Amino acid sequence: MSMLDPASIADYRAFLDELAEAARAEILPHFRVGGAVDDKQGAGRGFDPVTAADRGAERAMRALIETRYPDHGIIGEEFGEKPSQNGFVFVLDPVDGTRAFIAGLPLWGTLIALTYQGAPVFGVLDQAYLDERFVGFPDGAELIARGVRRPLATRACADLREAVLATTDPFLFNPAETGGFEHLRATARLTRYGCDCYAYAMVAMGAIDVVVESGLRVWDIAALIPIIEGAGGLVRNWRGGLAHEGGQVIAVGDSRPLEQALVSLRRCAAPFSPYS
Amino acid sequence: MSMLDPASIADYRAFLDELAEAARAEILPHFRVGGAVDDKQGAGRGFDPVTAADRGAERAMRALIETRYPDHGIIGEEFGEKPSQNGFVFVLDPVDGTRAFIAGLPLWGTLIALTYQGAPVFGVLDQAYLDERFVGFPDGAELIARGVRRPLATRACADLREAVLATTDPFLFNPAETGGFEHLRATARLTRYGCDCYAYAMVAMGAIDVVVESGLRVWDIAALIPIIEGAGGLVRNWRGGLAHEGGQVIAVGDSRPLEQALVSLRRCAAPFSPYS
Repeated sequence: MSMLDPASIADYRAFLDELAEAARAEILPHFRVGGAVDDKQGAGRGFDPVTAADRGAERAMRALIETRYPDHGIIGEEFGEKPSQNGFVFVLDPVDGTRAFIAGLPLWGTLIALTYQGAPVFGVLDQAYLDERFVGFPDGAELIARGVRRPLATRACADLREAVLATTDPFLFNPAETGGFEHLRATARLTRYGCDCYAYAMVAMGAIDVVVESGLRVWDIAALIPIIEGAGGLVRNWRGGLAHEGGQVIAVGDSRPLEQALVSLRRCAAPFSPYS
Repeated sequence: MSMLDPASIADYRAFLDELAEAARAEILPHFRVGGAVDDKQGAGRGFDPVTAADRGAERAMRALIETRYPDHGIIGEEFGEKPSQNGFVFVLDPVDGTRAFIAGLPLWGTLIALTYQGAPVFGVLDQAYLDERFVGFPDGAELIARGVRRPLATRACADLREAVLATTDPFLFNPAETGGFEHLRATARLTRYGCDCYAYAMVAMGAIDVVVESGLRVWDIAALIPIIEGAGGLVRNWRGGLAHEGGQVIAVGDSRPLEQALVSLRRCAAPFSPYS
């Protein structure tokens, strides 16, 4: 990213913090608000706390971007795409992990990426309830947790048999994908479910070694790539190519289990990806 | 519990807080300590951060109990059983959810129960990293989170089809149990995995409606029963009997989905339980 001098990097980082703060203010009031499930059904079709949080946060972030960077594009889960005039695009998923959010579990996150010509350059995963912000940028990655800032670094993992593996929901895989995942699960030291975006943060922190998911959209993954890669890891598709657009994704802290996992995953990889 | 007057209840509650604080002091220094998986293997067979946390915390809690309540029994996951002289037993699981702990996810908990003649009377789930303590006692349940205390109450859920369902790991069920769980999963509104003890806390808080697990030991469940029942829910085995000893367990916030779920679960319930 030769076009980004240190001053531009600092500007973008400060702006990404502004976006994350704006999203927090919209989301947190809706987290763990009580209410019976059957009451909610009567209150209006399609309206629920997580939708209110999602929409409010994306609206707030879009307003800040339009004012500060009017020529940058925007892709958001809730309100679609605004074309870019200069190659830069903000990619927004205000509440990734809506089912965790609904279940009261603090493993959802606000995902914010800045991409240039399709490649993620900056990424933020903000966990508002935990007051944890994972940030990836062109020369590193760090966690700001409850006011304490520390660099993120993945850990070494020489063999898939020693790996801590994670995915969100084993029943989201299609039958062929299930075959590939089962092989990984049978090989890994232990497997965790239900982590959503937070599993990727734990790869960047050196607590999880491998995350495998499929069916991701660009806003599910773009922000996580600079965080993991800034911490020393890799994010790839199931053919070993770039995973900027989502789809079938594997994230690792160490390249050795990646090669081992791809032996299984290539067999059930989607037939074509523009990046593979 | 006619033998517990208000002063005794207050004494026990204060003492349970002491136990939880002692456990926190032993556990938190071991959470999210870095280190490569393969390094750990070289450092000494069988030693790892979660084992150190588990043992340190149980040792600290046992020491406090021996001093203050020498006639009370103790059952702990790590150091076995001390018989009771008076019918009271403290039941301890210093780190429930060791796999969540290993993966850096703040969904593990310290479980502390006080039982009388086998029935759980007080229960504590302490999540040290989140600074959340869920407490159940003879006349209610509450959450103390970051200094703020509030009562816990389950939510209404009229139908299993509207329920948020949770379990820890769908691959821990035996084939017969998997059949029963699959029916629940196909019926419920959404299903979450990987929650360990924290799922029960979310039932007490009114965010999750049904938790289903099998293979539980007494220290996995005893502390959670007063929390859920103090909040208005129920904890039962898969035949609808009491679940004080663990085994196949279902916890609900509302009795209506319990009856619906037992239609499926009874078919794969273990043949005998002393409480069914």
